[in-house]
Amino acid sequence: MVKIKLALCQMNVVDNKDENIKKASLMIKKSVGQKADFIILPEMFNCPYSNDKFIEYRENEKNSPTLSKISSLAYENNVYILAGSIPECENDKLYNTSYLFNRTGKIIAKHRKMHLFDIDVKDKITFKESDVLTAGNEFTVAETEFGKIGIGICYDIRFPELARIMVEKGAEILFYPGAFNMTTGPAHWEGLFKSRALDNQVFCVGVAPALNKTASYNSYGHSIITNPWGEVITQLDEKESLIITEIDLNEIKKIREELPLLKNKRNDLYEIIEK
Amino acid sequence: MVKIKLALCQMNVVDNKDENIKKASLMIKKSVGQKADFIILPEMFNCPYSNDKFIEYRENEKNSPTLSKISSLAYENNVYILAGSIPECENDKLYNTSYLFNRTGKIIAKHRKMHLFDIDVKDKITFKESDVLTAGNEFTVAETEFGKIGIGICYDIRFPELARIMVEKGAEILFYPGAFNMTTGPAHWEGLFKSRALDNQVFCVGVAPALNKTASYNSYGHSIITNPWGEVITQLDEKESLIITEIDLNEIKKIREELPLLKNKRNDLYEIIEK
Repeated sequence: MVKIKLALCQMNVVDNKDENIKKASLMIKKSVGQKADFIILPEMFNCPYSNDKFIEYRENEKNSPTLSKISSLAYENNVYILAGSIPECENDKLYNTSYLFNRTGKIIAKHRKMHLFDIDVKDKITFKESDVLTAGNEFTVAETEFGKIGIGICYDIRFPELARIMVEKGAEILFYPGAFNMTTGPAHWEGLFKSRALDNQVFCVGVAPALNKTASYNSYGHSIITNPWGEVITQLDEKESLIITEIDLNEIKKIREELPLLKNKRNDLYEIIEK
Repeated sequence: MVKIKLALCQMNVVDNKDENIKKASLMIKKSVGQKADFIILPEMFNCPYSNDKFIEYRENEKNSPTLSKISSLAYENNVYILAGSIPECENDKLYNTSYLFNRTGKIIAKHRKMHLFDIDVKDKITFKESDVLTAGNEFTVAETEFGKIGIGICYDIRFPELARIMVEKGAEILFYPGAFNMTTGPAHWEGLFKSRALDNQVFCVGVAPALNKTASYNSYGHSIITNPWGEVITQLDEKESLIITEIDLNEIKKIREELPLLKNKRNDLYEIIEK
């Protein structure tokens, strides 16, 4: 199958885990009503974006009310769900982790954010994830009925090596649940999704929480899909919203024939290696 | 020294080598009049952009009227000149080659286009450089009084690995003389310069021929400078024009402190290697 209906759930995340899970459930059900094949939730969809809340809201994968609810929803509705991310704990370590559920509700991939968001833009935005989070060390490419897909989280998108590695492993869609802020969002969000899609001739999908002005961290929203020609084909504004967009993976083949970047790449001169 | 006055010479290239060299000389003199430190000419500034003309206009570096004129101009005016590119021949092979002259008129670097432009966008643009050109195999980073600079040519900008390798070798400005066309130009030119600058936190500079509607290949023009925050700080339209812009390399340090991408890059997990 090459056509996929993606559902981007740009939900408003509040300081109440049950409310967040309810909202996610509601948006998943609405997506199913619109015949979505693959539903994406934002980064930290069950938890406000702040280091103290990551600790407070943390869950162990083996005993996670959030993941168990999402699993049921995937199974009951026969749909793929990429559970943006949650604060995951294991052996006293905390991770920012994304889980991919297939139509039977089984976790078929997990990605722990590989690049931690440590930023200090003078008088604008300061955040240091590495104060509480541990970075993941695995590249995440999953096999689905639509082909291979890659998963990164937010700041991971800033590193062209990661995107290239996922594409060289066969990923045709790169998903980056993310929560850019009101400084880096307007400056860089759209451009990053365009350039990763264009350079690698794949689809890129970003799903963010809506802007919650009462939160300590203000998400830029603007959930987005870019195509292999580097164009924006879907983009929301900052408000809570659900959007369903169908993409056609055949476009990848067409663009790669017209502009053979991956063929013209000088594999004889350079290579991105995994260590 | 950290402030540099760059002169972008977006000249109209015609089917007459002498005329092209005259035009380049005139723009170089105007740039010197405006106190430029570093003057950049476009890709194929002495030759129309077509495979048959590359053959007809070819010059050997050891006996090149074009390079000898540019060398004199650099020496007489005590200025750096990046001679965009010319069709260079050596041992029966033809290259698309850029030459960097220092203030004494000496060639201190040359870059042979590493990625040949072979494109076939249906009903829009078809070009196959590899029919006549041979690709270069060297990464080009040159030491100047302003620090290190990297050189790529046009299609080379589409490959993030090349930019990253030049930056890892210490380049703080990446120059890409280029001639995008009226299809890929509007679609990708600006975005590529923004993303290479942003991902690597350097300045990127593109200098193109003006649009010559009577030529077989229609250059998009739009000579451009982007800064380490990924912003466009200078951009021309498609017409012949000269623009001088001062850049401050101190901005690189500031941006890299605020948003430490090169530090946050996971060198323990991946690496771009040269072969």
